[in-house]
Amino acid sequence: MRKIGVLIVGINGAVSSMVTTGVFAIRKGLVPPLGLVTELPEFNTYDWLTPESVVFGGWDFRTTGTHYEWVKSKNFIDPAIVESIRNDLEGVEIFDAPLCSISSTVMGLEGAGNASRKAMTQKDAVQKIRQDIRKFIERNQLDQAIIVNLSSIEPVYEAASQLKDMDAFERAIDKNESLMPASILYAYASILEDCPMVNFTPNLAFEVPALIQFAEERGVPLAGRDGKTGQTLYKTVLAPMLKWRNLKLEGWYSANILGNDDGKVLHDPKHAASKIKTKSDVLPSILGYNDFSHQVHIHYYPVRGDAKEAWDSIDFMGWLGTKMSMKINWLGQDSALAAPLVFDLVRFLDRASRENQGGVLTYLACFFKAPSGTMVHDFFAQIQMLQNEFKKECYEEQATH
Amino acid sequence: MRKIGVLIVGINGAVSSMVTTGVFAIRKGLVPPLGLVTELPEFNTYDWLTPESVVFGGWDFRTTGTHYEWVKSKNFIDPAIVESIRNDLEGVEIFDAPLCSISSTVMGLEGAGNASRKAMTQKDAVQKIRQDIRKFIERNQLDQAIIVNLSSIEPVYEAASQLKDMDAFERAIDKNESLMPASILYAYASILEDCPMVNFTPNLAFEVPALIQFAEERGVPLAGRDGKTGQTLYKTVLAPMLKWRNLKLEGWYSANILGNDDGKVLHDPKHAASKIKTKSDVLPSILGYNDFSHQVHIHYYPVRGDAKEAWDSIDFMGWLGTKMSMKINWLGQDSALAAPLVFDLVRFLDRASRENQGGVLTYLACFFKAPSGTMVHDFFAQIQMLQNEFKKECYEEQATH
Amino acid sequence: MRKIGVLIVGINGAVSSMVTTGVFAIRKGLVPPLGLVTELPEFNTYDWLTPESVVFGGWDFRTTGTHYEWVKSKNFIDPAIVESIRNDLEGVEIFDAPLCSISSTVMGLEGAGNASRKAMTQKDAVQKIRQDIRKFIERNQLDQAIIVNLSSIEPVYEAASQLKDMDAFERAIDKNESLMPASILYAYASILEDCPMVNFTPNLAFEVPALIQFAEERGVPLAGRDGKTGQTLYKTVLAPMLKWRNLKLEGWYSANILGNDDGKVLHDPKHAASKIKTKSDVLPSILGYNDFSHQVHIHYYPVRGDAKEAWDSIDFMGWLGTKMSMKINWLGQDSALAAPLVFDLVRFLDRASRENQGGVLTYLACFFKAPSGTMVHDFFAQIQMLQNEFKKECYEEQATH
Amino acid sequence: MRKIGVLIVGINGAVSSMVTTGVFAIRKGLVPPLGLVTELPEFNTYDWLTPESVVFGGWDFRTTGTHYEWVKSKNFIDPAIVESIRNDLEGVEIFDAPLCSISSTVMGLEGAGNASRKAMTQKDAVQKIRQDIRKFIERNQLDQAIIVNLSSIEPVYEAASQLKDMDAFERAIDKNESLMPASILYAYASILEDCPMVNFTPNLAFEVPALIQFAEERGVPLAGRDGKTGQTLYKTVLAPMLKWRNLKLEGWYSANILGNDDGKVLHDPKHAASKIKTKSDVLPSILGYNDFSHQVHIHYYPVRGDAKEAWDSIDFMGWLGTKMSMKINWLGQDSALAAPLVFDLVRFLDRASRENQGGVLTYLACFFKAPSGTMVHDFFAQIQMLQNEFKKECYEEQATH
Repeated sequence: MRKIGVLIVGINGAVSSMVTTGVFAIRKGLVPPLGLVTELPEFNTYDWLTPESVVFGGWDFRTTGTHYEWVKSKNFIDPAIVESIRNDLEGVEIFDAPLCSISSTVMGLEGAGNASRKAMTQKDAVQKIRQDIRKFIERNQLDQAIIVNLSSIEPVYEAASQLKDMDAFERAIDKNESLMPASILYAYASILEDCPMVNFTPNLAFEVPALIQFAEERGVPLAGRDGKTGQTLYKTVLAPMLKWRNLKLEGWYSANILGNDDGKVLHDPKHAASKIKTKSDVLPSILGYNDFSHQVHIHYYPVRGDAKEAWDSIDFMGWLGTKMSMKINWLGQDSALAAPLVFDLVRFLDRASRENQGGVLTYLACFFKAPSGTMVHDFFAQIQMLQNEFKKECYEEQATH
Repeated sequence: MRKIGVLIVGINGAVSSMVTTGVFAIRKGLVPPLGLVTELPEFNTYDWLTPESVVFGGWDFRTTGTHYEWVKSKNFIDPAIVESIRNDLEGVEIFDAPLCSISSTVMGLEGAGNASRKAMTQKDAVQKIRQDIRKFIERNQLDQAIIVNLSSIEPVYEAASQLKDMDAFERAIDKNESLMPASILYAYASILEDCPMVNFTPNLAFEVPALIQFAEERGVPLAGRDGKTGQTLYKTVLAPMLKWRNLKLEGWYSANILGNDDGKVLHDPKHAASKIKTKSDVLPSILGYNDFSHQVHIHYYPVRGDAKEAWDSIDFMGWLGTKMSMKINWLGQDSALAAPLVFDLVRFLDRASRENQGGVLTYLACFFKAPSGTMVHDFFAQIQMLQNEFKKECYEEQATH
Repeated sequence: MRKIGVLIVGINGAVSSMVTTGVFAIRKGLVPPLGLVTELPEFNTYDWLTPESVVFGGWDFRTTGTHYEWVKSKNFIDPAIVESIRNDLEGVEIFDAPLCSISSTVMGLEGAGNASRKAMTQKDAVQKIRQDIRKFIERNQLDQAIIVNLSSIEPVYEAASQLKDMDAFERAIDKNESLMPASILYAYASILEDCPMVNFTPNLAFEVPALIQFAEERGVPLAGRDGKTGQTLYKTVLAPMLKWRNLKLEGWYSANILGNDDGKVLHDPKHAASKIKTKSDVLPSILGYNDFSHQVHIHYYPVRGDAKEAWDSIDFMGWLGTKMSMKINWLGQDSALAAPLVFDLVRFLDRASRENQGGVLTYLACFFKAPSGTMVHDFFAQIQMLQNEFKKECYEEQATH
Repeated sequence: MRKIGVLIVGINGAVSSMVTTGVFAIRKGLVPPLGLVTELPEFNTYDWLTPESVVFGGWDFRTTGTHYEWVKSKNFIDPAIVESIRNDLEGVEIFDAPLCSISSTVMGLEGAGNASRKAMTQKDAVQKIRQDIRKFIERNQLDQAIIVNLSSIEPVYEAASQLKDMDAFERAIDKNESLMPASILYAYASILEDCPMVNFTPNLAFEVPALIQFAEERGVPLAGRDGKTGQTLYKTVLAPMLKWRNLKLEGWYSANILGNDDGKVLHDPKHAASKIKTKSDVLPSILGYNDFSHQVHIHYYPVRGDAKEAWDSIDFMGWLGTKMSMKINWLGQDSALAAPLVFDLVRFLDRASRENQGGVLTYLACFFKAPSGTMVHDFFAQIQMLQNEFKKECYEEQATH
């Protein structure tokens, strides 16, 4: 049996806890594999990575206590399930996240501070991450490790687009550029170690011209950016409806209220900017025009906990100039929507790896708010892309038999 | 220039009034052609029927007063626009709807009663309709007439499925079967006159095995049934979203409140049955399972007028059994959503006629709640079907040049 | 210490389970006494009945298993709390509900059937109830028993208003009138035993002219009818707002979806009639006019479980004929809203008993959808009535000191 | 017949246009007096100022064009009504608003700019306002003028609370303190001219210790501050409901979207601060605790026009710690809700004047978000105060007869 490591940046966070708990619970037969795209009849003929083949680990600042204890502290996860997979959770290895390029907002989260920890240079951080990956592979006798970025939202780093080749990129690392976000360091280390990477956050990670080219050259598959789980998901579903009925969008007002750590970090406008950007771009590309008022607000509302609520007013005009409106109130559970997609992406990257696909996998666009390498935001066009990729292979497989 | 007649069953109703007013207003350049699918870049390369080429007419019980006066009585249509196209509206010819198979609920609507009118046999009614069509074509020197069924909702007529051939059908007509709905008589007359027909209502019209076969034999194109304008539209857009995220639907509660004549007729449970049926079938065919609670309620709420409000609670389960919910409040204008689709369908039937397509046009499924001849309800799969039909022709056209 | 028995009709139902669990949990200090009106600063100077002084018991058809087991089966009550008060719950005595005047809908509920049980005459049923009360008082050495009606909703019984004196009433009992609801038998038995009674349901119970007069004569305090917990609560709060701003109500559309046993019984239109009636009367009495469309729909939606969701569209007109609208989506937990009010009413009846108040206590109107003995539905006018009663006593107490 | 002048600061704005149009339309019998509290049966025994007795005028920067033209430009007012009262609207006298203490945001509004206008000192501005009042009274032969402040929202002016006596106040005026808002100058002029004043905005106007004392000394009646028309209205209605059911508020999230000039000004955070403050204070004073998350957001959403939409999530906890939620979607028309209250207040001030009441009239609290001179925010407690004042007079009147 193949054995694949999944190393998560931010392993003790809300989404990560949902990922590990869910995969372990499915492995034990405690819950059905709901939410997994790879379990749909349309895709389940492939020999996907099984829950049994996965070994979880990851980095975090929150290193006091085991992963089990961190999962237990999330009050939105059923304690009965957590207890019955306690051993599995306790076995999840946690590496110290290297301290560099981290904002004070993130360090202020509960459990994140560690007075004794010292800041590293970026160069040393990359080295540490590489060593952690190697140790993890060796200790667990893995065939491969896949890196998943689930870190907290980082401030915008405009200079990324300037780093067009690896020389420029390495010079920036050597200079220890104070604003370079940590996610980029993880991406660099992953590619150097030939590990496929999922960037499930709005952070940059591998979204640097130099790194994408580097991954293409080395044949390392990449998937990103920013998981499409709630408001943006239904936005990219409803906007095509308006489009195909030729109903003119006049305004789309979106408010989000959330009360988890993600919300706390997003409360800082510097951090929210990345997120609001990936959320805002989707409409014009679907509709083909942008003369409407589109607002996206994110508010930290502690009452809500991990549950994420959204409210939208969609205002449009039709026949004879008639004005109409559609309101949506979304009562989702953020991490429960994200977790299965993370495991789906691990499976797709594992498949890509076996198929020798490298570089950004644009056919995974349906999983992301700001899909790398493509401007297609229409959810159904994205599903078509995924189906095409998958059918292609089926055809190829048939041809070879 | 081609000249095409559009004969509407229920010409003085809400949707019909919106159709005529809108087409006349677009013709005058008073409003943009919003809501028309045929105006989308994806379809607008075809040489569609123009607003200038259309002559409107139709049947109604409400024959006291001109069409202009009936349009004027609809308080949801801008009076300034109505005045500026008064001449066009006054020119719309109204034929007496033949009195047979009409329920007392419909006859109770304002303006519908006509003490002096006598009931006809069904055979005579078919004859009258045919003569009206011929007169209309002759008087207006038309190349063709297209029939559009916008009549009030009729009670369920279970026996329709038994009428499997024209012999059986004609025997039923001869017997003057008391329950046979009037819409079937219009369909029969249309096919006999080789007129394409749109059935925009949940009524049967041509949905009788014998009539569909008859239309195929004669090469008469048909499109139906029940325009997809509001709640069912977004239902067939959001259900695929749940499907492609493998989120298990547990329940979908739908309430509709409306205050126009349609609402008054639907208040009678016999009439509502047809509508609720076409609204209920869509979910299992999209999701592939039916172990959920699906409720559709329609309530007559006079306050709302022609505006149609809907409210939905969509309850689903995901990863680790997490329960989530999405609520929708739809503030639509029923007839403004329906009217452009009616004109789109007239255009598509005119094109089909020119292309010598006969029988039920399944590629028009995206326009209907209960598409004839296909079980595809997923809106995006339907759009794909429409695009395929259209691309096919483009290819063919390219090939011939 | 005084010791008061609380005997509940339907002791193993959802609301009853919440009442016993909550009172026991408060007694143990496990939860704060939220939801209790009698704990408000405005009322907490009175020496109310304490949780420690209460002994619970009651009648039910569901007699297989202890009260603890029935409580445990309710998945909306925290199992950790249930376990920690298991002894208390197991001590709740359950009497066989006498089988008469029970509809097949109610008998169809899970656990309700008992093949071996025989139907009784109404006269015998009254005797049985009286004996149960006496046994309960004796065994537990109680100072008094208070009866609380929480039975399932019964069909309408029009004849009740004809029973104007005790002679007519007793003749009806002797005749074993088939439609007389069981709740009336409990009420009769309670008054005969001088036990105060709360009618928290829309059922009749003591709402029979003869019984009310009888209770007045015997000085037995009564409180009813139909607990005001959700939609009607906010309706009687928002309607006064419209009134005091002189905004004209044009329509109020109300839908309720619920998925517990209550919902199942209400699904039967005969049963729903009582409930919809008590819910519909409130608006005209507050607003002073009734030329608006008021609709109340109740739908059984199993997905919801004990959680009760409501949706309202409130349509009103103001200055210059401007039309406006307010929409409400209520996500309540039915039994959690009802339970504290039941305990409040027990306390108020105990106080009334100590104060020698008899007959219907109209000052308790704020607790009920269809308050006995008064037409005041405006919640704030009702609160005023409660405060006046309470202040009166304070004055009197001050005067005597 | 008495003749009363109503001079409005911001006479060409949205609310003012609604006030004048509505009063003129009622005078002509075109519309019923909906929205007027003073027309309720509870108050209509008083001999209120009639629409016929009122002469409107006011100040504005937007002086190009007549008041009729400004009203006509508001697309939310029925043009048919505007035309039928054109003469009345054209007769409304507009005075140049003195240019001082005006922010650039306000000056940026359409029609507000006037290049040739020169800034005045505050002392001169007060003089100009006084002269305008005198001219208006003289020209129209009025018994009295009442001043209504409907100006745009001004930035916060913290120093106001320091101006504790008229010496300090006049020194500040003499110094021409750059931040002193214009509304204070209007208030000062009004009191000097013995004109009652309504402050319907969140601006300070007479909310300066020195001015309130000055008005008391001179016996000038005052009413303010910030009309309670939408979200805060229902907030002060629903919070008492939670209070009197002892349901613990955990969070109240409020979003407002509006698209009129008011919205444009509020988009500037300096201006929004005043408004959000008056909106935020209400809950703790009603509930008696403040350990909950209360958020009020105001967003400028041009699509909405004068219609004001609000959305709330009210999260509360009850029996056994059960968490529940209520969502509200308010679709109001801002100026239509405000306008009748403005005329009510004019009537109440006219009555106060006749009754020789001076200083802040606390019994008018129900009209305001931040009622002057009282901490009572509970709407029903406020209605009680209004009724008490009114009954008192009835008693007095009865006593004198």
